[in-house]
Amino acid sequence: MAENLQENVVFVGKKSTMAYVLAVVTQLNQNNKEVVIKARGKAISRAVDVAEIVKNKFMKDIKVSNISISTEEIPSQEGNPLKISAIEIVLKK
Amino acid sequence: MAENLQENVVFVGKKSTMAYVLAVVTQLNQNNKEVVIKARGKAISRAVDVAEIVKNKFMKDIKVSNISISTEEIPSQEGNPLKISAIEIVLKK
Repeated sequence: MAENLQENVVFVGKKSTMAYVLAVVTQLNQNNKEVVIKARGKAISRAVDVAEIVKNKFMKDIKVSNISISTEEIPSQEGNPLKISAIEIVLKK
Repeated sequence: MAENLQENVVFVGKKSTMAYVLAVVTQLNQNNKEVVIKARGKAISRAVDVAEIVKNKFMKDIKVSNISISTEEIPSQEGNPLKISAIEIVLKK
């Protein structure tokens, strides 16, 4: 899966939490006023960790401007699409 | 850990997702106009699943009225408090 289709989106997956923290901090330092952290399934907990660590440890002027949850459908091999929860956390300078 | 200190709070932990879905649906059917789903750490993903399943499968008139994330400190045996991410999802009739 492409992890950064849009420039200001960080898609959290199976790498270490700090890898995504670094990606978010880098984007916020590159003139992006807003970064969207996205995750699905079990990576949702890690996405929340990433947002909290960026906010509390690295950039204390950052705020969580919106959080939304949804259900995404992923095509599966058996035919029935797999439903999986997703989260989007918007961080703003 | 006490799982339901407040009447309208469902604390999501290690049980099956459907156990918490049932708890939320039961509370919403018992005159509660609002239920707060709380979780910490890895259970955060499950809390999002619970909210999505209640909303999409059981009670389609329910809305997510607020989602917030935070960092909680838990006393640990080594002395340094353990920091853990937490989520609160408010569902409203």
